[in-house]
Amino acid sequence: MAHPVTLLGEAQLRALVPLDLAAIDQVEAAFASLATDAVAMPPILNLALPERHGEVDVKTAYLPRFDSFAIKVSPGFFDNPSLGLPSLNGLMLVLSARTGLTEAVLLDNGYLTAVRTAAAGAVAARRLARTDARRAAIVGAGEQARLQLDALRLVREITHVTVWARDAARAARFAADVRAAHGIDAIVARSVHAALADADIAVTTTPSREPLVHAEDLHPGLHVTAMGSDADYKTELAPSVFGAARYFCDRLQQVRVAGELAHAIAAGAVAADAAFPELGAVIAGRCAGRTHADDITICDLTGTGAQDTAIAVLALQRARAAGAGTIFHNDLTT
Amino acid sequence: MAHPVTLLGEAQLRALVPLDLAAIDQVEAAFASLATDAVAMPPILNLALPERHGEVDVKTAYLPRFDSFAIKVSPGFFDNPSLGLPSLNGLMLVLSARTGLTEAVLLDNGYLTAVRTAAAGAVAARRLARTDARRAAIVGAGEQARLQLDALRLVREITHVTVWARDAARAARFAADVRAAHGIDAIVARSVHAALADADIAVTTTPSREPLVHAEDLHPGLHVTAMGSDADYKTELAPSVFGAARYFCDRLQQVRVAGELAHAIAAGAVAADAAFPELGAVIAGRCAGRTHADDITICDLTGTGAQDTAIAVLALQRARAAGAGTIFHNDLTT
Repeated sequence: MAHPVTLLGEAQLRALVPLDLAAIDQVEAAFASLATDAVAMPPILNLALPERHGEVDVKTAYLPRFDSFAIKVSPGFFDNPSLGLPSLNGLMLVLSARTGLTEAVLLDNGYLTAVRTAAAGAVAARRLARTDARRAAIVGAGEQARLQLDALRLVREITHVTVWARDAARAARFAADVRAAHGIDAIVARSVHAALADADIAVTTTPSREPLVHAEDLHPGLHVTAMGSDADYKTELAPSVFGAARYFCDRLQQVRVAGELAHAIAAGAVAADAAFPELGAVIAGRCAGRTHADDITICDLTGTGAQDTAIAVLALQRARAAGAGTIFHNDLTT
Repeated sequence: MAHPVTLLGEAQLRALVPLDLAAIDQVEAAFASLATDAVAMPPILNLALPERHGEVDVKTAYLPRFDSFAIKVSPGFFDNPSLGLPSLNGLMLVLSARTGLTEAVLLDNGYLTAVRTAAAGAVAARRLARTDARRAAIVGAGEQARLQLDALRLVREITHVTVWARDAARAARFAADVRAAHGIDAIVARSVHAALADADIAVTTTPSREPLVHAEDLHPGLHVTAMGSDADYKTELAPSVFGAARYFCDRLQQVRVAGELAHAIAAGAVAADAAFPELGAVIAGRCAGRTHADDITICDLTGTGAQDTAIAVLALQRARAAGAGTIFHNDLTT
């Protein structure tokens, strides 16, 4: 008996799953599911290879609404650039939730993670930013900075962009690229404070180990999505913002140990058992999101296996519909 | 830039990696590495899907002696037999320990796990059983019972086999198959006690939830390998055997929570922090194994990611040497 396994490479996946409204809707559904369904999402498995300057994370989540689930393998090998290779790569396996059989191997080199991460930023903005938001501040100038802006533009009519990055030259290139690609105003700010001063939405996209955004950088009506921190040594928001804004998160138990909340707890700014609403509960109508135009809202995104399963399921659906991918006929000895 | 990924199916892997002395040596080297090298082996990731009657375990380990490591995905979906599918399946990914890039996808449906598990039984017998051991007792009559006997025969000259299983008809078939396949004496015993009475080596291979082997079943010179228990609800050895035999294990921190030791600790027969030698330390010459012909030895095997990495590396080496497998050229966007 032969069982078909669909193989897809990065180029195919880029073509099948662009960052678009369908991807955003799929990730939004995953967040809603997290808040309302019996989702199984175990803690992340981490394998550290310090002598190789590498590490691997494995994430997974089962969402009852899908008949498949993903297991994502995310390596980071930090000597790779000296070999002409990207530091981050990885793949996703798609397994049947009915039989456990492998349905697909998505050799995406991290592309689907980039898309689902940007899509989550769009979901946060769609649910928490002012509907009339026009001005975006982007902190950081890497791949996610670009994708987060692309994602914002799918849910809000962004007309002005201000960027700040530690590397001013990269920030300048980012602004020039935005002007050229989208024909909208884009300028470099000389500080995070200046970048945020006139913004309706700010997205922080850095692996900073020191807070970049403090309470005094916030103003009424602002929404901030902090998507850079996903480990206990990374932080973009000072503990002071917790007293100045309404805080939302992707997964409470995760931000307590690996998100901005972890640092606020460690600083004594927030009680260790304090509860905050998850984005999924806002989507599902179980918690209020933005209630006034002048609310200051923050959404802390650390990344969840539920997003991985959602985007992997979308990729496989589209591959099947398009007849894309290589089919490997694996034998099954029963 | 394209990066080659080798794909291998179950039939190819069965041909490339039979249960032989090379597989046993490879697994033995992994045990030695566990005891002597800076092996990284994180706790198992477990995803439970109770409404689907399924679960998935993910195991991994990095051994400095290998330039690759495996990530093993082991699903168990217990309604599968009603669909004509095996309950257990799964695959292994092989990643480069230098770059994290995926080198191979081994769609083995659990075959490599079966081989590395049997090979571990052979390692335990080779290191702990009497060199003149001839008589084997096998408890259980499933796939591992057969493989464990095959493995024993590679390291000791087995001339007599006694089998006990809860299902007497299966035990009878097992004995008949052994006689037919190997031309050696094989009989069914009416109790575990009777099966072990005249044995030099016993291997227990069941998912029993009640102990099958008690102190009064042991006699001088016997070696017992207990390979069935790998979760806290499974047990094959009564706590009383801890006072009657010298106990060895594959991984101390693992048997304390998921092996026979967990039950002995829970029963108060052994202190929670009691230390016992690992099989790898015996192989590496750091701990004594059997020191007298009359020693009673026990080896508790729960299965380790180190074994998975060892067998996966062997499979990929052999596939490359044989030019076997399908090469998928994955693009890398740098």
